[in-house]
Amino acid sequence: MDYASITPVAPEVLAVMEKHASAANPSALYAEGLEAKDIVEAARSTISSILSAQKKEIYFTASGTEADNLALLGVFEAYKKDFDVPHVIVSSIEHPAILEVCKEIQKRGGEVTFLPVSEEGLVNPADVRKALKDTTVVVSVMYANNEIGTIQPVKEISKIIREWRHANGTALPYLHSDACQAALYLPLDAQKLGVDLLTLDGIKMYGPRGIGMLYVRSGVRIAPILFGGGQENGLRSGTENVAAIAGFATALELAGEKREEESARLLEIREYAIASILNAFPHASLNGSRTERLPSNINICFPGLDAEFAVISLDVAGIACSYSSSCQTLKENSSSYVVEALGHPGCALSSLRFTLGRETVRSDIDALLSALKKIVK
Amino acid sequence: MDYASITPVAPEVLAVMEKHASAANPSALYAEGLEAKDIVEAARSTISSILSAQKKEIYFTASGTEADNLALLGVFEAYKKDFDVPHVIVSSIEHPAILEVCKEIQKRGGEVTFLPVSEEGLVNPADVRKALKDTTVVVSVMYANNEIGTIQPVKEISKIIREWRHANGTALPYLHSDACQAALYLPLDAQKLGVDLLTLDGIKMYGPRGIGMLYVRSGVRIAPILFGGGQENGLRSGTENVAAIAGFATALELAGEKREEESARLLEIREYAIASILNAFPHASLNGSRTERLPSNINICFPGLDAEFAVISLDVAGIACSYSSSCQTLKENSSSYVVEALGHPGCALSSLRFTLGRETVRSDIDALLSALKKIVK
Repeated sequence: MDYASITPVAPEVLAVMEKHASAANPSALYAEGLEAKDIVEAARSTISSILSAQKKEIYFTASGTEADNLALLGVFEAYKKDFDVPHVIVSSIEHPAILEVCKEIQKRGGEVTFLPVSEEGLVNPADVRKALKDTTVVVSVMYANNEIGTIQPVKEISKIIREWRHANGTALPYLHSDACQAALYLPLDAQKLGVDLLTLDGIKMYGPRGIGMLYVRSGVRIAPILFGGGQENGLRSGTENVAAIAGFATALELAGEKREEESARLLEIREYAIASILNAFPHASLNGSRTERLPSNINICFPGLDAEFAVISLDVAGIACSYSSSCQTLKENSSSYVVEALGHPGCALSSLRFTLGRETVRSDIDALLSALKKIVK
Repeated sequence: MDYASITPVAPEVLAVMEKHASAANPSALYAEGLEAKDIVEAARSTISSILSAQKKEIYFTASGTEADNLALLGVFEAYKKDFDVPHVIVSSIEHPAILEVCKEIQKRGGEVTFLPVSEEGLVNPADVRKALKDTTVVVSVMYANNEIGTIQPVKEISKIIREWRHANGTALPYLHSDACQAALYLPLDAQKLGVDLLTLDGIKMYGPRGIGMLYVRSGVRIAPILFGGGQENGLRSGTENVAAIAGFATALELAGEKREEESARLLEIREYAIASILNAFPHASLNGSRTERLPSNINICFPGLDAEFAVISLDVAGIACSYSSSCQTLKENSSSYVVEALGHPGCALSSLRFTLGRETVRSDIDALLSALKKIVK
């Protein structure tokens, strides 16, 4: 029950990767190189169709983290000379790949506004409007949160930004959205979503490890953050990982095929789980909105619980879950800044995240419940 | 004959990768996460033994390019506040992953000295000595060149730098070496080599794609270039690619096992090839040193030849080679800056690189010769 941390690789994806495991260098001029380039370009084409984008708007990276870094640092660096203090707006519950980049932007002389979220974990589009300045170069609001599964009003935020750009006769700010957690369950049409930049990651969608991508709308000014051979149209140097790129496209296709059915299936399991847990533990509460929420995410506050201890105890019972995102775990801090941002400080150390996926069935929830009953007082 | 561009993945490496294809997130606290972490740490341990390094000195990246970027930009950024104009020294025939980073360092207010090379393609250690300044933070000289296979006197350069550091009572400059091309044929003992930073890449040593590493000697001050979850001890954020990391360690082990025998075998084929080509084409000449050279590298200037056309013609004859590095090819320029640096401008557009590998046999050279005879006037 930790699919939000990493998903297994789909068998279809593994098959594609095996097929292209020893592909040549796509920059080589001979037949094998051209063949490798064709594989990369076919993948780019598949992905661009899914995103309603142009092929040249798809840039492969090594991870969602790198794509997030490229989006924010790349735009910041591209506009650093145009403004004394370029300004960036993000929500306070973004992934560390955004929040840590924001700290770096502050170090590099930029200004960052961290937007609060409601008790439900939602960004208020009106707050984005209020935070906009003449110096704002990029706004980044994640499509769905990794800890509490909250789906942010990206379309509404896009509308506000477009109105601002129109009223001020400017191309800025750009809107970036980290869609890593959304890829399996929400529509990914970049046009309809109204984003200028969008991050996806293979490991969150039954795809290969070590591959991510950034959609960059044509016309967006952005600087590279890795320098070298000039691959990916000069924006991202490093030999293309052909097998992973092909596997990534397959994973995204599969996600689209399964989206509707799998969302409905998991929604039913999620609702069963939330109802059962809240019923069994009257003091427990759900973190984040119940309606604007990924069908795969359950995040519950058990007041007084030591979340770290509970994760380890549940592991003994054969249940894998987490108390915050894996990236937070690294900092050896069992507190969740996301849950804290919801306004219940007591829950930050006492919340558990259960995330569902393709192999989750309803009876897993029953097993979870009996395990929880032994651990939670 | 383009193994220097990319090597196929060794079957042993593929087997390891398949085994760990769906490993969990190594940052997770449950059993599967700890197991994934163990796989990563076992790989780190294997690699550190081979490099005579400590485990904590091995940092995984997504490529050699990223490791080169991290080495130079990371040290530059870490010392930017200590010097008005931090100074960097590199050879003029480094890989684009170093040279393009140097341009970026210049943009960020740093100073770069590009060292010339001899007609043989060798850096003169005395030139390094002359270029050293109180503001020099890092010197980067590749272990072996990707185009002409020249083996640089890294140990001698290290000696000069150590003497300088000792005489000046300073920890600077650090010595970085890009060992991507050297990994298969030269000893990789970081202590004996005397480097502070060392880059390796999976794709150049029959390893996985999308994985590289940087050795960072304990005590070296370096800043991250990617920000997020804080993986790799805070120096490189992004979920660890467990299967690729395990495959990388296996590839490096294999390289060590095969090094001596394979070097001797290829040296004999290389010498046969060079002698045969120079004999068949009296106007042709070898680019780079004949002795201080990787056993896998042949780079020949055929005066008057259109190298780009030759690569395509040889491809028709079933021979894959290149006229410069693949990264240069990207820039749609059939001129080699490496060959140009040797002082024969006429050769920059008329040189072909043939690089040998595990599947190359002596009869391949005979096939190459008959193909060349049809193409080269």
